[in-house]
Amino acid sequence: MSFPFSAIVGQDEMKLALLIAAVDPRIGGVMVFGDRGTGKSTAVRALAALLPPVPAEQAGYQDGSPRKGTVPVPFVDLPLGATEDRVVGALDLERALGAGIKAFEPGLLARANGGFLYIDEVNLLEDHIVDLLLDVAASGENVVEREGLSVRHPARFVLIGSGNPEEGELRPQLLDRFGLSVEVRTPQDLAQRVEILKRCDRFEREPEAFAETWRRAERKTLKRIAAARAAVAGVTVPDAVLMLASRLCMVVGADGLRGELTLMRSARALAALDGAGEVAAQHITRVAPLALRHRLRRNVLDETGSTARIERALLDLAKKDLAA
Amino acid sequence: MSFPFSAIVGQDEMKLALLIAAVDPRIGGVMVFGDRGTGKSTAVRALAALLPPVPAEQAGYQDGSPRKGTVPVPFVDLPLGATEDRVVGALDLERALGAGIKAFEPGLLARANGGFLYIDEVNLLEDHIVDLLLDVAASGENVVEREGLSVRHPARFVLIGSGNPEEGELRPQLLDRFGLSVEVRTPQDLAQRVEILKRCDRFEREPEAFAETWRRAERKTLKRIAAARAAVAGVTVPDAVLMLASRLCMVVGADGLRGELTLMRSARALAALDGAGEVAAQHITRVAPLALRHRLRRNVLDETGSTARIERALLDLAKKDLAA
Amino acid sequence: MSFPFSAIVGQDEMKLALLIAAVDPRIGGVMVFGDRGTGKSTAVRALAALLPPVPAEQAGYQDGSPRKGTVPVPFVDLPLGATEDRVVGALDLERALGAGIKAFEPGLLARANGGFLYIDEVNLLEDHIVDLLLDVAASGENVVEREGLSVRHPARFVLIGSGNPEEGELRPQLLDRFGLSVEVRTPQDLAQRVEILKRCDRFEREPEAFAETWRRAERKTLKRIAAARAAVAGVTVPDAVLMLASRLCMVVGADGLRGELTLMRSARALAALDGAGEVAAQHITRVAPLALRHRLRRNVLDETGSTARIERALLDLAKKDLAA
Amino acid sequence: MSFPFSAIVGQDEMKLALLIAAVDPRIGGVMVFGDRGTGKSTAVRALAALLPPVPAEQAGYQDGSPRKGTVPVPFVDLPLGATEDRVVGALDLERALGAGIKAFEPGLLARANGGFLYIDEVNLLEDHIVDLLLDVAASGENVVEREGLSVRHPARFVLIGSGNPEEGELRPQLLDRFGLSVEVRTPQDLAQRVEILKRCDRFEREPEAFAETWRRAERKTLKRIAAARAAVAGVTVPDAVLMLASRLCMVVGADGLRGELTLMRSARALAALDGAGEVAAQHITRVAPLALRHRLRRNVLDETGSTARIERALLDLAKKDLAA
Amino acid sequence: MSFPFSAIVGQDEMKLALLIAAVDPRIGGVMVFGDRGTGKSTAVRALAALLPPVPAEQAGYQDGSPRKGTVPVPFVDLPLGATEDRVVGALDLERALGAGIKAFEPGLLARANGGFLYIDEVNLLEDHIVDLLLDVAASGENVVEREGLSVRHPARFVLIGSGNPEEGELRPQLLDRFGLSVEVRTPQDLAQRVEILKRCDRFEREPEAFAETWRRAERKTLKRIAAARAAVAGVTVPDAVLMLASRLCMVVGADGLRGELTLMRSARALAALDGAGEVAAQHITRVAPLALRHRLRRNVLDETGSTARIERALLDLAKKDLAA
Amino acid sequence: MSFPFSAIVGQDEMKLALLIAAVDPRIGGVMVFGDRGTGKSTAVRALAALLPPVPAEQAGYQDGSPRKGTVPVPFVDLPLGATEDRVVGALDLERALGAGIKAFEPGLLARANGGFLYIDEVNLLEDHIVDLLLDVAASGENVVEREGLSVRHPARFVLIGSGNPEEGELRPQLLDRFGLSVEVRTPQDLAQRVEILKRCDRFEREPEAFAETWRRAERKTLKRIAAARAAVAGVTVPDAVLMLASRLCMVVGADGLRGELTLMRSARALAALDGAGEVAAQHITRVAPLALRHRLRRNVLDETGSTARIERALLDLAKKDLAA
Repeated sequence: MSFPFSAIVGQDEMKLALLIAAVDPRIGGVMVFGDRGTGKSTAVRALAALLPPVPAEQAGYQDGSPRKGTVPVPFVDLPLGATEDRVVGALDLERALGAGIKAFEPGLLARANGGFLYIDEVNLLEDHIVDLLLDVAASGENVVEREGLSVRHPARFVLIGSGNPEEGELRPQLLDRFGLSVEVRTPQDLAQRVEILKRCDRFEREPEAFAETWRRAERKTLKRIAAARAAVAGVTVPDAVLMLASRLCMVVGADGLRGELTLMRSARALAALDGAGEVAAQHITRVAPLALRHRLRRNVLDETGSTARIERALLDLAKKDLAA
Repeated sequence: MSFPFSAIVGQDEMKLALLIAAVDPRIGGVMVFGDRGTGKSTAVRALAALLPPVPAEQAGYQDGSPRKGTVPVPFVDLPLGATEDRVVGALDLERALGAGIKAFEPGLLARANGGFLYIDEVNLLEDHIVDLLLDVAASGENVVEREGLSVRHPARFVLIGSGNPEEGELRPQLLDRFGLSVEVRTPQDLAQRVEILKRCDRFEREPEAFAETWRRAERKTLKRIAAARAAVAGVTVPDAVLMLASRLCMVVGADGLRGELTLMRSARALAALDGAGEVAAQHITRVAPLALRHRLRRNVLDETGSTARIERALLDLAKKDLAA
Repeated sequence: MSFPFSAIVGQDEMKLALLIAAVDPRIGGVMVFGDRGTGKSTAVRALAALLPPVPAEQAGYQDGSPRKGTVPVPFVDLPLGATEDRVVGALDLERALGAGIKAFEPGLLARANGGFLYIDEVNLLEDHIVDLLLDVAASGENVVEREGLSVRHPARFVLIGSGNPEEGELRPQLLDRFGLSVEVRTPQDLAQRVEILKRCDRFEREPEAFAETWRRAERKTLKRIAAARAAVAGVTVPDAVLMLASRLCMVVGADGLRGELTLMRSARALAALDGAGEVAAQHITRVAPLALRHRLRRNVLDETGSTARIERALLDLAKKDLAA
Repeated sequence: MSFPFSAIVGQDEMKLALLIAAVDPRIGGVMVFGDRGTGKSTAVRALAALLPPVPAEQAGYQDGSPRKGTVPVPFVDLPLGATEDRVVGALDLERALGAGIKAFEPGLLARANGGFLYIDEVNLLEDHIVDLLLDVAASGENVVEREGLSVRHPARFVLIGSGNPEEGELRPQLLDRFGLSVEVRTPQDLAQRVEILKRCDRFEREPEAFAETWRRAERKTLKRIAAARAAVAGVTVPDAVLMLASRLCMVVGADGLRGELTLMRSARALAALDGAGEVAAQHITRVAPLALRHRLRRNVLDETGSTARIERALLDLAKKDLAA
Repeated sequence: MSFPFSAIVGQDEMKLALLIAAVDPRIGGVMVFGDRGTGKSTAVRALAALLPPVPAEQAGYQDGSPRKGTVPVPFVDLPLGATEDRVVGALDLERALGAGIKAFEPGLLARANGGFLYIDEVNLLEDHIVDLLLDVAASGENVVEREGLSVRHPARFVLIGSGNPEEGELRPQLLDRFGLSVEVRTPQDLAQRVEILKRCDRFEREPEAFAETWRRAERKTLKRIAAARAAVAGVTVPDAVLMLASRLCMVVGADGLRGELTLMRSARALAALDGAGEVAAQHITRVAPLALRHRLRRNVLDETGSTARIERALLDLAKKDLAA
Repeated sequence: MSFPFSAIVGQDEMKLALLIAAVDPRIGGVMVFGDRGTGKSTAVRALAALLPPVPAEQAGYQDGSPRKGTVPVPFVDLPLGATEDRVVGALDLERALGAGIKAFEPGLLARANGGFLYIDEVNLLEDHIVDLLLDVAASGENVVEREGLSVRHPARFVLIGSGNPEEGELRPQLLDRFGLSVEVRTPQDLAQRVEILKRCDRFEREPEAFAETWRRAERKTLKRIAAARAAVAGVTVPDAVLMLASRLCMVVGADGLRGELTLMRSARALAALDGAGEVAAQHITRVAPLALRHRLRRNVLDETGSTARIERALLDLAKKDLAA
């Protein structure tokens, strides 16, 4: 049994990013920076548990046998030190040695299909595995070409990575390929901390009763996600909003165009969550730190943090527009 | 035959941590810092030998065959240089080559189920193995996904690691995941040292007679643990105590919330060992060095040791409360 | 479905290099330097999708079975961390273990035959794999001598590598073997960026309709390539143009003669694209940056960029000729 | 045929340590520091050859077949670069491949059972092998858990390591686990050197005659060892002697209690060799350099060598006792 | 079809070295230093294609089956990253697994037998492979002792290595074992460069017609080589010439005697190419840079290049002889 | 056909060491320091070819089949990069896989039995292989304990290593285990060099005739060796000579006693070669540089070379004796 998503205290930015990714999985993954012990994997698990079951044939991958009914949304926690074999799948040795048949043994990517793939301390994974995970997350398909195997199966999942920037960084090339990034800090409010302690204790000791308390809140969140998923394709993006997105990226100096593409897509998902039919400037403003923070070049002369630089840029643009 | 737990001279902090872990194994492992040759593994073995036998079906893991009766509490000493295969289990080669069956060969995690897993010089183990051990210790379950195997079996054990901080450190991320930590030093009292020498000599030369001498003390300790195990779930934690735990963590600056969660849990186990129905501030105070010492950030400007910083913080909080 | 080649906004130099390579694949590969997220692989995929299908027996390699009809132009995206086995092909284990036959399992080089082989971040590949890819691209044939196999099959493809010079460089020996190189930068024009955003969004949401919009432009480009392919063998190169090519290489100080050979070949392909029967000085001038930029020695005393040095050299030559 | 133990010229400290280890193998191994070419392995071989044959069933390990009679005391010279497989034993491949049985192929530890295991240049062995050897030497049992094997067999032997501290050092953690250590230097007395030359030459040219010359001395040494072995369990250790041992360790600052435990045990063995029924202060004094030299922390401010520091400490203690 | 040897523009030193090696393959290999893209491998291929076919039984190695008639002179281009297996040959896995026979699978050395073995960027090969290649080239025999194989087959070939000294150097020990070395630079004459461009273009577009143009020149070169081969054994070397060779080596300070042995052998081959019956001083003078350049110790105080130092030494010797 | 030993010009020290080793192989190997291209391996091969054939059953090792008659003295040239398998022998895979029998496949040590094992550039071999070779050379027996094999066969050979001290040094521990060492330099006498050139050329062109010229000198050398071999066991070593050897070692400060043991043995072999019945001081003096040069500690304050230090020590001792 998972901790209820609605019972998570604080961590608003992380919850927002997860909701956006739940509405439009093509956003391209969420990178979570932050302190250890702040419940990062708890939140992702909670969201997976909250979402409605998916049709069995759209989740996981079981080698061709027909699957009926529904299954819970898959949640895969990638183990540290996982090899490429375990991630993408490999030759099924049992059948190769036994029956002499070259069959495919699905890997973790297959299991994550239709759900979430969580990587704790993504900065400790080898670069080529991160790269591979991002490729598959982006294309929604796992293409395996090894040991004489040639297999291709759907692998649509939301990739969530966590890492502490103090422990070594991802190459900018890899960071750039995550759609959104959020920062999670240890809460510094006493009441909030005691509240977290109590909820954890209650959940640990009486999980059923605790879940019951939060059932209603959970149902409300679920409805909001479902509505947004249905509406997002119809949400329009006015030219002025696109211009705002591009101008913002130019001012903060993000390389390439992934920044504004992500801004556009996540602002649209946020509008859908808000029940709006059209993306407004405020949607851009709200998702801008999430979509751009990890795409800024380090500026040696400007010690300001990434988030502050984005907020300052938004303010500058607003002032210019007013002056104009 | 093991050295009697009660015959261990001094080392009070270590004995306290072991008792707490025996009462509530979910505390999450004990890290022992300290000098070589101070009887660290002797103490853990002694506790394992002291505890009552466990039902055979809850200890170890023997591949499905029915097991009856009881067995001694398992104690596994992880050999330096152990590979992931040996730790988590692997494909049973004999059966794979012989009968062509993909069977699981349980590893050391299976053997430790229901007991203790001791790692001497944990800082010399590869990070990903430590990580894996902590994951399993936390979840109580070993999930194996390799070589076409997909096995999941209970692996509930208390993890005890020892290490000399002078010989290289664990990453803070890993340290933080140990529930408690204790410091063990070479005793500097002559009488105590001679007493240890005599007990060791006696035990080496006449183990049976020596054990007999301590039988009564052992039985008393055993009763205390059994009573605490039965009571711990009913021990309440007043809000004031939770606030004390959180305030303490905020003052000493521990990252995340694992510090106060462990404080709460271990104070509750200690209260149970004391026969108290409610956790009091003094329980927090007594377990604070064990629960927080390894979670402090190094402060370059403050050369004070971790333990002293925690004690000073406790004092400051007490003064403030008095002043209020 | 691929993004239409004609719908790519800007990136003229890259499109020019791709067209030249499509007309004369013996040019020897294109190296793309530049920012991440600027649609490099999109452009290559677009060109491959635009080109007319090729006879099945001239594309890929399927182990001897007769193939009829036509297939789309192959496009292979070399995965990071690909091993030599996967690239060149290897012993077919299934048949080796099953039937005891030493058969060849074709690799990615076989699959790319008749099309494009794209390597993202080529600077992260091991040198000996890059070397091998360049050898095969140059000879149009893959010769495999390993594990007792002795196989040789056609492997005619255009090699496209991309890389960010800030992330580590290719050895000059390897760079020199790419025929052309182009630089791709993030566009800095607001209208252009918004246009790109809109086209991407439209393509993502209504791919069919979007493709329809561009069908006519695509057909025109296709005709231009087909005409140039037919004409290129007949395009003449006057001595004065050859002298211009050689003088230019001598002035900028390129090692060896690959520079002027590539200049000659790519100017001829450009003339064919322009519908000209004879190469003119302007053709040399237009392809010079693409053919020479990556062949210049670094000059410690001259901080000018490669492109500027080539343009200055062209100007100097023009002035001298006028003065003469 | 081995060089006679009694014919070894000088090297008194080394001979003493070997005799003590022969009387009580639980002392825990001997580490020999010193110059190359000083006959270290010769001395150990000589002692092994001198000792009386052991019952065949207590020496080596031959896979279950019944063994009768006696065999010479085993002497195993661990080859540099020995792998863990060869040391602990491994799966018997012949039987595994042939009969499909998972049988155990005993290793060097099995062969050393009941005798001596000599490691030249122990500092060049990998740490985890040294650790493993020390574990087995301490427990007298080899526990093998690998490749699906689960074997446990007696492995009681005296571990002798040699090493030149100028060529790299053992970690203090490992050094501490050797019971005794001795220093061997090239003799600087001309007559002694010529005598050694002559004995070596005589032994090389007429081994039988040479052995005959020393037969009587050998027999005397053998009797002394046999008597001490019979008596050692009954030798008492007065409290004053235990206090002397502990005080000495506290003064020289050895970590942990292995120092005084070894002092107690080796003084008792020495008393037995001397034919004394009770350990006296002089026994402690004589074994102190052997038992403590390798357990001192390096003191940056005190350049005095380890042996001198121990002797100074003994003198200080004697003075204090006199003054008291 | 290869580029005609006679159609190579310039590169006289390289062509001279290749002709000498074609006349007396025991000269011991040619090392080519120089710029990339200057047609080094083209020249070696051209020479191999020019030479008359060799009897099939003296070329390559095909496992015992009788071979009749003649075959073209073998030319093997050693792939970068080639393993020792592929170079020397290995166990034939197919036959080992299939028929249980330990047969030999010939390697690249066998294939090069009777021809040329070309190694581009020899400085990137592992030292032990270079060493092995030089051993075989020197002895004319490949001796394989591995995996239970014991095979010995002729492997007479001319070894040609190329490398850019700016990219890392060969150890002097290895360099010394190449018989000759040449330097190849990018031509700096405009007319020459344009001529090369034209010839390359013509060859690329009309290979047959181009070859026809050069047929006569090719035939002449072939006759010259054939005549020299027949005559070389009878060419005498006067004592004065031997003294000149030795004095030259002493003056320039080459280690060992390989320098003058090579001087003697290559001067004799050159005399044979010139149709002379006796070696003259001028033959020594002409081959001296090729035979000694790579054998000079680096002289820190003398910045003069190797070639210049050899020429200066020749001049000094000539002056001394005149003065005498 | 080998170059005749007697035809080697100069290199007296090397020839002396080889003769001593041929008389008493227990001297323990010869280390040759020196320039490349000075005919080191030629000299060793020449000696092996000169010696009389040995009984077939004392040379090499062929797996038990009876061998009759005599065979040439074995000469094995250890290939660079040789693995431990190839050196010591290994499991015979063919028989293991085919017949399921665990048979031994002899290695290079077996092949060298009764002859010479030559290692060019011994400093490039891995330390543990050098160590193993020295162990076997010293004991005359190869003991193999691997892969379930337990084989022991004679391996009596003279080990010759060569190396250039400028290319990396052997550890002192390994150097000390070579019995003798010699220095080989490029000759600096013109007449000598020309003579070498002529002999090499003659040998290369007319090997049979050349050998005939030297047959008589070869026979004389062979007789001298045979006589010395017969006499060496009876040569006496007076005490005064032993004292001279020990004093010399003490003065030059060699560690351990291997220095004087080697001095004694090699002086005895030299006396036998000289036909003397007793070792004299001059025999010590002549072999001293060979026996001690590689055993001196480097003295930072004394820049004198090893050979000069030994000669100075000999002079000092002679003066002292005269003065006494």
